[in-house]
Amino acid sequence: MAIQRIDCGEIYSTVVVHENTVYLTGMAASDTSADVKGQTRQTLDQIDSALALAGTDKSKLLSVQVWLKDIEDWGPMTEVYTSWLDAKNKPCRATVQSLLSDPNYLVEMMCIAAK
Amino acid sequence: MAIQRIDCGEIYSTVVVHENTVYLTGMAASDTSADVKGQTRQTLDQIDSALALAGTDKSKLLSVQVWLKDIEDWGPMTEVYTSWLDAKNKPCRATVQSLLSDPNYLVEMMCIAAK
Amino acid sequence: MAIQRIDCGEIYSTVVVHENTVYLTGMAASDTSADVKGQTRQTLDQIDSALALAGTDKSKLLSVQVWLKDIEDWGPMTEVYTSWLDAKNKPCRATVQSLLSDPNYLVEMMCIAAK
Repeated sequence: MAIQRIDCGEIYSTVVVHENTVYLTGMAASDTSADVKGQTRQTLDQIDSALALAGTDKSKLLSVQVWLKDIEDWGPMTEVYTSWLDAKNKPCRATVQSLLSDPNYLVEMMCIAAK
Repeated sequence: MAIQRIDCGEIYSTVVVHENTVYLTGMAASDTSADVKGQTRQTLDQIDSALALAGTDKSKLLSVQVWLKDIEDWGPMTEVYTSWLDAKNKPCRATVQSLLSDPNYLVEMMCIAAK
Repeated sequence: MAIQRIDCGEIYSTVVVHENTVYLTGMAASDTSADVKGQTRQTLDQIDSALALAGTDKSKLLSVQVWLKDIEDWGPMTEVYTSWLDAKNKPCRATVQSLLSDPNYLVEMMCIAAK
């Protein structure tokens, strides 16, 4: 049973594919000067790109964990997130508050998808 | 490879089934006036219902993440949780403290199960 | 479809194997007098042992969640973690800050691996 690892850096692989399940590393914005809506859009763009590396897309998302630096940002994050989702193929989700690895990150997401 | 999505709302699907793996969305109490034991019972009731929607049950739980608003509630949450578990089929678990999406939520759980 | 549960205690199974996917329970140090590097090493030792119980090893890790009591410990935790990883087989990872179930725990990790 082969495991496929894509875009491997020093600390993690961005994408790991095992059988028909695709794991993504925790994603956050690259331009952290953006507000929570902007950081959410950047994070979702990164998820799109990472899913494409595995030959899949957001319509096959299974489960998403969302961490917010400030849970008060739940509303604007959710607004951007739900408008991005494939309307007929929404994954499970849990959203909680946690400080993130860069103090300027407002949101981070970790996804599991089908291939 | 079909993905089955059950009880789909605006933000998430309650249950997503991929091959033989069942993902549940983050579950929390509906009556948030309850104490942590009551909220844990409500959450576990919701998990039972969601698992049933996928044709599975708690004896097939694989992994559970638990978030507590206050980690000091670990004891009473765990007491209710362990008495609910199928005694011969306990899943993996991790429990950490995070603020949750409703300030009145004391506990939230996200599960992966087998079909 | 058999589910294999290994090292089952009162609250959780340490390892649950479903088809070719291996779930580990949240792992933390046993000697909590150690600093974050020491606690990370102990946690990784426990992960090695748990993976071995399922007949697999760290080269087959798919995804790792890391919780730090203090996100300021990201650097030393990551240093120990990356030197432990199989250099050609790095899993996905997300690291966030959360208080853990024992106030002396500085780090906890929860892993998914392939068999």
